[in-house]
Formats: sequence, C-alpha cells, structure tokens
Amino acid sequence: MRMVDIIIKKKENNRLTKEEINYFITNYVNGNIPDYQVSALLMAIWFNGMDEDEISDLTDAMLNSGDKVDLSSIDGICVDKHSTGGVGDKTSLVVGPIVSSCGLKLAKVSGRGLGHTGGTLDKLESIPGFSIEKEPEDFFKQVREIGIAIVGQSKNVCPADKKLYALRDVTATVDTIPLIASSIMCKKLASGARTIVIDVKVGKGSFMKTIDDATRLANELVKIGKNAKDFKRNVIAVLTDMDEPLGRMIGNGLEVKEAIETLKGRGEKSFTRLCEKISVELLVESGYINNEEEALKLVKEKLSNGEALSKLKDMIIYQGGDANVIDNYDLLPQAKEIIAVKSKMSGYVQSLEALKMGLAAMKLGAGRENKEDSVDLAVGIEVNKKVGDYVKEGEPLAFVYSNGKGTNEAINDIYDSYLIVKEEVKKEDVIKKIIK
Amino acid sequence: MRMVDIIIKKKENNRLTKEEINYFITNYVNGNIPDYQVSALLMAIWFNGMDEDEISDLTDAMLNSGDKVDLSSIDGICVDKHSTGGVGDKTSLVVGPIVSSCGLKLAKVSGRGLGHTGGTLDKLESIPGFSIEKEPEDFFKQVREIGIAIVGQSKNVCPADKKLYALRDVTATVDTIPLIASSIMCKKLASGARTIVIDVKVGKGSFMKTIDDATRLANELVKIGKNAKDFKRNVIAVLTDMDEPLGRMIGNGLEVKEAIETLKGRGEKSFTRLCEKISVELLVESGYINNEEEALKLVKEKLSNGEALSKLKDMIIYQGGDANVIDNYDLLPQAKEIIAVKSKMSGYVQSLEALKMGLAAMKLGAGRENKEDSVDLAVGIEVNKKVGDYVKEGEPLAFVYSNGKGTNEAINDIYDSYLIVKEEVKKEDVIKKIIK
Repeated sequence: MRMVDIIIKKKENNRLTKEEINYFITNYVNGNIPDYQVSALLMAIWFNGMDEDEISDLTDAMLNSGDKVDLSSIDGICVDKHSTGGVGDKTSLVVGPIVSSCGLKLAKVSGRGLGHTGGTLDKLESIPGFSIEKEPEDFFKQVREIGIAIVGQSKNVCPADKKLYALRDVTATVDTIPLIASSIMCKKLASGARTIVIDVKVGKGSFMKTIDDATRLANELVKIGKNAKDFKRNVIAVLTDMDEPLGRMIGNGLEVKEAIETLKGRGEKSFTRLCEKISVELLVESGYINNEEEALKLVKEKLSNGEALSKLKDMIIYQGGDANVIDNYDLLPQAKEIIAVKSKMSGYVQSLEALKMGLAAMKLGAGRENKEDSVDLAVGIEVNKKVGDYVKEGEPLAFVYSNGKGTNEAINDIYDSYLIVKEEVKKEDVIKKIIK
Repeated sequence: MRMVDIIIKKKENNRLTKEEINYFITNYVNGNIPDYQVSALLMAIWFNGMDEDEISDLTDAMLNSGDKVDLSSIDGICVDKHSTGGVGDKTSLVVGPIVSSCGLKLAKVSGRGLGHTGGTLDKLESIPGFSIEKEPEDFFKQVREIGIAIVGQSKNVCPADKKLYALRDVTATVDTIPLIASSIMCKKLASGARTIVIDVKVGKGSFMKTIDDATRLANELVKIGKNAKDFKRNVIAVLTDMDEPLGRMIGNGLEVKEAIETLKGRGEKSFTRLCEKISVELLVESGYINNEEEALKLVKEKLSNGEALSKLKDMIIYQGGDANVIDNYDLLPQAKEIIAVKSKMSGYVQSLEALKMGLAAMKLGAGRENKEDSVDLAVGIEVNKKVGDYVKEGEPLAFVYSNGKGTNEAINDIYDSYLIVKEEVKKEDVIKKIIK
C-alpha cells in the first residue's frame, strides 16, 4: 500500500477502505507517512467528503491509535457530555453535579482548549487548590465513591487525533464534517461511557454556522456511536444557539461563579434550561429514568433541594479544592477593575455576536492563542444585556473584569458585538433541535 | 500575509493575487513555508483550478525564483522546442539539426527526465565522448558558431519548480493543468527563446488522455507565452498522438540511431512528418520564413542535401563526441541479445499501448524509476509493427534489445500492449491539432 495511491483514490472521489484508513493513521502516528502527504489527503477529504463507513473507520483507527479508559470497575451507569465549543460554555460544571446527584456516574476526562476562554479544566483550576491531575485508580475510586470526577488527560488518548488536529489547523482543513465528527468521537469513544450527549453549537460563534450544517454533523456523530466497533454508543446531539454567548459570564473564575449560582437555582433562564435538558437526555437515554417528565421533575428537585450543589462541593473537596468558594465568591481570583460598558443608545438588543465577545475576553487574557500561553483566571466579561433585552442609553451592556491587559480593545469589541434596534426583538430558544 | 489564509482563499474558490502567489513561491523556496502547507494548497488548486492571470503569475514567480538564460549575445533568431514527454520521443535530435541548418539558432538546455526512457541528455550521452556539460560562455559560443547546442542545466533555473515538482509527485497533484502549464513554461521562459514549439502529447501514454484536455493545456501554454512579464513569447502547441510510441525505437542509443536515420531521409513516415511540421512551425512563426510551403520546401531540401545531418555532426564534434557514429552505428552501445517478439496470430494492429511499451523499456533498464538510478544506454525496444500494420502469425511485432535484465517481463508487457484484430485498421495522423 502506498500513501500516494490513497490520496489519488480520495481525490478521484472514491471511498477508502478500512485497511487504507488504518494504514494511513497507523503510519502517520508512527512517523512513516510525512505531514505533506497527510495534508494533501485532508484537503482531498475537505473537497470530496467521506461516507458513513469511512467516517466510522477513521474514528475507529484514531481511537485505536492510543489508550482507552476502561470503566468496567465502576458500577452503575456511566455517562459523558461534550460541547463542540462556544463562548461562555460552563455547562459541564452544572450538568455533571446534577446527573451524579440523580444517580448517574460521570467520569469525565476534559481538555484545556484553545480559544476565547479556557477549557473546563482551566475553569476548575480557578477554584483555589483544585487539582485536575489524578492517577487512573484514584480517578475511578472517586467516581465509585461520589459519582463524579473531572480530570485532565493523563493517558495517551487518540494521539492520531492530536497530530491530525495540529496539521488541520495550519492547512485550512479544520472545517469539514468528516474530520470534525471523527475528531470529537474518537475521544468520546475512548472515554468509555455508553450514553453521551454532544452539545453541538450552531451560529456565528461556532464552526457550524447554520442549522443545516449542524444537523449534518449531528447525524454523523449519532451514526459513529451506532457503528462503534468495540460497543455501540448512544449518542444524543443537542443543537444549541451560539449566536450570542451562553449564560452571562465569559471567563474562567466568572464562569465557575455562574455555574454555582445556577446550581443554587439562580442561573440565567436559558442557560438553566439547557443544563436541565442535557441532564434529562442523559437520564432518559441511558435508561435510568423512564420518561422525560419524570426526569425533569427529578432534575428540578435535585436543584432545589441543594443535592446537585452538594455534589459539586463533594467533587471540589475530593479534588483538593477549597469548597468555601461555594458560599464565598471572593475566594475565586478577583480582577483589579470592573468597568461598565454603557449603551450609547436606547433600544432592544437584536444581536450580540458570540465570537466577538469571545475575542474580547481573550484580549483581556481569559483564553489562549497558543498552547503555551497562560490564562488569567480572574478576567472576563459579564454580559448584562442579551438578545431581546431592552437597554436604556447609559445602562451597562456588559461589565469588563480586567487586570489591565487589553481593556480598551475589549471594550471596543463589546460595543462592536452589540446591535441595538428600535423595534422589539424576540428571544430565541437556546435549544434548536435534538437528534438521536 | 499568512500561508493558511492563501490556502483558505483557494479552497473557497477565490482567485489568488500576484502578491499572494509571489509570497507563497518566495517563502516556499526560502524554506519559510513548510511542505505540508504547500501540498494542501496544491490539492486545493487541483480541485478549484486557476485562471489565466493566476497561472501567468505563478509561472512568473517560479521563473523569478532562479536564474535565466540571457541570449542577447547571440545574433539571429533563437528558437526552442519542448515535449510534454512521450515514449520513443527523439524529436529534438532531428528538429534541432534541421532548423539550425535552415539558419535558426537553437540554444537548448535539456533535462534527463524520469520515466520510461532517459531524457534527451541520456540519449546524447550514448554517443561515445559526447559531453552535455558546458560553461555558459562556451555554450553561447557554440550556438554563435554552429547554430546549435544541447546541454544540461548548469544554472539554478526555476528552483521553485524543482521543489514543487518533487512535492507534487508524492502528493498526487501532478495532473492538473495550471501546475503542468506553469511548470513547463517557467523553464521555457527562462530559456530566453522568443519562439517556442511545445509538442503536447495526447493519449494513453501521456498525462493528457484526451484531445479536450490537451487543448486546454495548449491554450494555457500559449496564453502564458503572451502574458510573460519580461517579454512576450510566441508559443505554438502541436498536439500529437501518444497512444502508440513515436517512431520505431525506444531506448537511448536506439533512439539516436533512429534520429540519424531520419536525418538521412530514411525515418519512419509519421515521425518524419512530425519533425518536419515542428521545424516548419519554428521557421514560420519566428518570422524567418514567410509561409509554410516555402518552409517545408526548405526543410525537405536540408534533409535531402545532407545539411541537417551535417549539423548534427557539427554538434557532436563540438561537444566532444565521436562523429563516426553517424556512419557506423556499431559505435553506439550494443545490447548483448536481440530477441524477436513474434506475433501469436495474424491480423491488423488495432492498438499498441505506448505506456506499456515504455514500462517494458524501463524494465530492460532504459529508464529511471528514481533520480539516482543509472540508465543502460544500449537496451530498448524496436517496434516492428505499428497501428494499422498487418502482421502474420510468427512475424516479429517487436525486437527486444536486452542486457539480461527484465527480458521476460518486457516481452510479456510487449505482448500485452498489442491488440490485433481481423478487420483492417486505419492509421491515424500523428498530428492532431495545432494551437497558437
């Protein structure tokens, strides 16, 4: 087998066999196939796509390139959730405690993520003392005992995906569904959970700009789950709005605060609704609860009786963090300045561009441009006015939490991201569609 | 400017500016842009193509990446000819002497070529003592004095093309007209001649499988000549058959013998016709002779009075070779065995696949698979029956000139390449179309 023949085949719009895909992935990871051949193949895939079998074979090959998490030592139903990445997305910090308080097990291996704000790990590290490093046995023990753990990657999971992703990033081959779907799913298959909710972001602030694109991606994710070679996964794709940021807070410590507020039942309405919906899907689709009504009732109960919040507390304590943070937000990293970004006119917020808001947060230091960059856990943005809200001239649109870096640029970006109109604007539902 | 943005632009089917193309070529040659980004761009070009301006800008950027030949010290009209590469193509060895005996100047810098048989340089080196290495000043002196020289590349001509070609070869991005056209033309623009005939091969044995494809390539070649930034070139594309091999001989020394025979007026009819036609185009299109009838008359005169042959002799002597070879073919490298490949049936030759015949010659040692391979100048194939010929069972289809290597495989390939039928088959004209 020769890599050049595999490139020719895909370039001429023929389907690749399982053997060809395995050959390519194995030898790329081994270093026997050079980047320049792989990038040519990736571009041919960008143009000609891959069918369902090819995508499943690619996912499987990437999965088999590294280690897998074995959850067999954990009794009960293990679930997982993943987001394709959006601005202000702290959903895992709320959904995890909810579902584990209901009785599911969440053994989550998370990432740091490049982009506007840090990943879930960065957010958790804004809690003083919180450690995301765990030996596998301690990780499993924690899940067995309290039903929830969120840790960093310690094993060599999907090295093929790591290598491919770095190459895709510099060769303009990120934005294609077969490669996005296989990259997400190889890591989710490796996580070992059988029921997985994927929060597929749709809108200007995400990869999938339209419902049609997001639907195509969602269908592939569900199919990969069904086709998984080791054991079938039950994948539920929840398509959610990412035209505007999710919730009110953007920035690591700020998002932890919002997650805690939400677990206290004081969260923003649409963000709360999303967390409840994802939790319900996990409870019902895993077979743990019979129907959606019952599941939603249970979720609301766990939120109102404080058990969900208590799970977060258990996790913080188990992972070495200071649980007093739950009652005292001053223990989170604090920015030096909080600056109100005041509206220059009165009217209704018609749009609020998530991507620009994310970039503004990044300029303040909340995110990473390069892997090596450090993140300022204190800075970020509090969104005061969201789509559909009425704002009076002089009223704050948002608040900038700054430590001095990039403040003016961030403020300009925030003004830029708002479109305010005279006519009333309808709020859209955060949940667009569910595919399973 | 960032390479990834240039890739995105082409991937999204937008045209690249002159500045973007220059940036890409300059920085690729410098080593600032890695192969993996270039191969992604090449694949995007394979899918989305390039327009006339982009192709001209790319050609120009590759031309400017290296040295150019300055023919200003040579009086008279300098012409050049190039072939896109076929099996048994020894046209330059005949056309060069013809046009220089007519009074044109041919200062030809040639290549060795990868593939079925060696390039023009390998063929010339089968003449004992012949040297293809010349200092630029000696090269110009020879052209001034005898009107013809064929030498190897000594300068750093189009390094961008060399680097790109090597990458295209292993990334399945060779077969696309913008890249083929710019690769041919950057070297031809660098050669300095103002009138250039390009012999575009069409058929199973060449890149351009159909007349339509060859016509598209030819149109681009002509346009690049017109758009050349330093001075306009007059490019004439002669589309010629490459379903069957050209002439009768395939192999380096054998092709020299056939070239000499042709200059003696004893060449195969269709090969002779092609050499005459290319010569006529050079004479007329360069403005040296008024019309085709006059030009053809002059060409035939130079062939019959021995002056064309005498030019080849002058060149051999000037470049250190043994000119006795012209009258004594035994001085050329001799193969140990000549084996007749006898027809297993009687009938008419319907087809004779050039590509398979070329591969057979390569197996005998006449060509190179890799740049480093050495070539056996003695071996090759003499084609006895061509398309349209009648052959009796037991009559030779071809003769294999072997030094022991690959003989049986070559014989099998030769049998494989012939299709013999009962019904009479019409001979097709070697010249398909002329575009200028």
